[in-house]
Amino acid sequence: MTHKFSGNADYLNNGNDLVVVLGHGQLARMMYLAASQLGINIIAVDADRLCCVNPVDKTVLAVDVETAFAHCIAITSEFEHLPKELLATAQATGKLRPGANSIAAGADRIVEKQLLSSLSIPNCTHRIIHSVDDLTEAYKTLGPKVILKTSRDGYDGYGQWRIFSERDFASISNELSTFDFGHMPLIAEQCIEFEREISLLGITDIKGKHHYYPLTENHHGDGQLVLSLAPAPNNSDELQNKAQQIHQSIANELNYVGVLAIELFQVGDTLLVNEIAPRVHNSGHWTQQGCQVSQFENHIRAVAGLTVTGTTTDKQVAMVNYVGEAKPSKTLQAIENTHLHWYDKSVRAKRKMGHINVVANTVTELQTTLKQVKSQLPESLAKNLAKVVD
Amino acid sequence: MTHKFSGNADYLNNGNDLVVVLGHGQLARMMYLAASQLGINIIAVDADRLCCVNPVDKTVLAVDVETAFAHCIAITSEFEHLPKELLATAQATGKLRPGANSIAAGADRIVEKQLLSSLSIPNCTHRIIHSVDDLTEAYKTLGPKVILKTSRDGYDGYGQWRIFSERDFASISNELSTFDFGHMPLIAEQCIEFEREISLLGITDIKGKHHYYPLTENHHGDGQLVLSLAPAPNNSDELQNKAQQIHQSIANELNYVGVLAIELFQVGDTLLVNEIAPRVHNSGHWTQQGCQVSQFENHIRAVAGLTVTGTTTDKQVAMVNYVGEAKPSKTLQAIENTHLHWYDKSVRAKRKMGHINVVANTVTELQTTLKQVKSQLPESLAKNLAKVVD
Repeated sequence: MTHKFSGNADYLNNGNDLVVVLGHGQLARMMYLAASQLGINIIAVDADRLCCVNPVDKTVLAVDVETAFAHCIAITSEFEHLPKELLATAQATGKLRPGANSIAAGADRIVEKQLLSSLSIPNCTHRIIHSVDDLTEAYKTLGPKVILKTSRDGYDGYGQWRIFSERDFASISNELSTFDFGHMPLIAEQCIEFEREISLLGITDIKGKHHYYPLTENHHGDGQLVLSLAPAPNNSDELQNKAQQIHQSIANELNYVGVLAIELFQVGDTLLVNEIAPRVHNSGHWTQQGCQVSQFENHIRAVAGLTVTGTTTDKQVAMVNYVGEAKPSKTLQAIENTHLHWYDKSVRAKRKMGHINVVANTVTELQTTLKQVKSQLPESLAKNLAKVVD
Repeated sequence: MTHKFSGNADYLNNGNDLVVVLGHGQLARMMYLAASQLGINIIAVDADRLCCVNPVDKTVLAVDVETAFAHCIAITSEFEHLPKELLATAQATGKLRPGANSIAAGADRIVEKQLLSSLSIPNCTHRIIHSVDDLTEAYKTLGPKVILKTSRDGYDGYGQWRIFSERDFASISNELSTFDFGHMPLIAEQCIEFEREISLLGITDIKGKHHYYPLTENHHGDGQLVLSLAPAPNNSDELQNKAQQIHQSIANELNYVGVLAIELFQVGDTLLVNEIAPRVHNSGHWTQQGCQVSQFENHIRAVAGLTVTGTTTDKQVAMVNYVGEAKPSKTLQAIENTHLHWYDKSVRAKRKMGHINVVANTVTELQTTLKQVKSQLPESLAKNLAKVVD
């Protein structure tokens, strides 16, 4: 019964639509699983090794990136921090959706802030920092509480410094005395007191029509997303519309196609854009169980030129991130209305290993199930839920 | 950017649960897509070539069948017509769920009829046919309308003869004069007037507890399933319970684990078992959009020892088979609440290429959407819907 690998799959000429995803992590994996149901073939690109892989089992495929680009109907990306040359090659095909301009706005906080300013979209007061002198000046204006961020390559709390006192300022200024600002400018943001963070997942189809999931409320711990609640508690048509206006303004400016996630701080009736992500987003994972069509399927539908649909929900849904811990026991999966999604990665501290979607008919029911889930989580994860789940 | 295949995936030692599926068609494909979300790895076995394949892209994997059997937590099957040796090897591991006895009951109509008789479960009056003389005798008793079926390897109308007149009888008797009854006994079934065909999809978990989807009403054309409606129109608790009693009786007798599909003829208040399928079933595809957990996920949950859940629905759902025609245009997929599932196979007459799930809140809404779907189908498929969709 022994058969050796013969690499006989034909990834390009099977008569089906092919979409190439730049990046091969869990977002590409979940796009693959959603797209395969539609009969759309997904090839993921390992952006470091510049080779084509299956994003589920990580097999390196017998096709090179350029050939995949040539045969696909669309190219999309699962993250913004892509090698310049790869991005340029993808853009040159005319098939990259969203385009390089959108990816740049997600990858570089300076480009992002300039975009927001040009569209008069409220965001946190900030300064671009090219030197320690710039920082000194900025801290005078924006202090006493400032968040300093690298303009690129930062995510999940990496590449950030909190300057909450003169002492912090002195120590961080000192730390940055040898920093290469020319290579990596920083952004100093005034730290504001916001009530909560919410996010909007919008999908723009190939005809430029926008579609929306309900607003999601997000809770963080250790710089990472811990929990999303959808629809966001106390959501109103007014708040939803305000967020959608912001989304439309950005998506139209960028000639956007696909899912665009917008993280927002809510301060009373005001929404300030924290950041934008030109891709499917962790705060949209709840749509897998909460909606007829998930963000992953709708993103692929959009970039493949299909109709976007199924974005409403009549459920109360929560998404709990499963970070830095091994696969949970069957007891957790035995809790009714609880759906574990697992990314099949080796365990590493702070690494997103999977997530749990919890579905309920009412907020009370959701809280009850979340309590059960919390009781089955490792302490490192349970503690982060304490504020929301009692 | 050229990288050649390096076959670097590790299918066995990634720390995850592995389930092996015997068969690598669309059912294995849909189990793969559902299981991957749970972090359960699926390896499919090409039962002809006796090699391991990825059931989505059909890549032959760098692992042999025996090694996969040795490393997996469970083996299951997507069809019953398996090579004897493969089935015996799988059974010998002690991991085959459902077991070889269940697969035999689905593969051989004689075993199936004997099982039903031993449990006193009503089914169509029948005779086992070992010769033309047997057939002559049987036709006298069961005629004037008899369906003759091969005891094994028949599906989708293949391996069946209709004897509806003395003339049919004469011609078929003649045709069978050289038939090898020793190799392949036949079954003669009295053709009854039934009101409709319904099916029950039951799932038995590893602890022996049974779970049920609502009954489904099935419509056929050219010997193949054309349309399923769920929940079955005019379903009642009484009817549902009656079907569940039959299922429990069979599942308990077989020490069953996983999805067991039972096709039933309804005649007034009576249910007659037409046939059983020890696997996920075409008439359960609607659960992908209709329920929180699809038959594919629940089958994998059951055989992997996880909790079975999410089998109820508050929707009206239809499943339309897409047979023998090329992938439809985007117009079909643009119809709201319509979900095309595509299996990525080359087109062949009578071949199941995909299916369309339609979801609605009411029967009226369902009919409206089905009419839209029908208007976008090739004539060969639309004509089969005429009886149900006006």
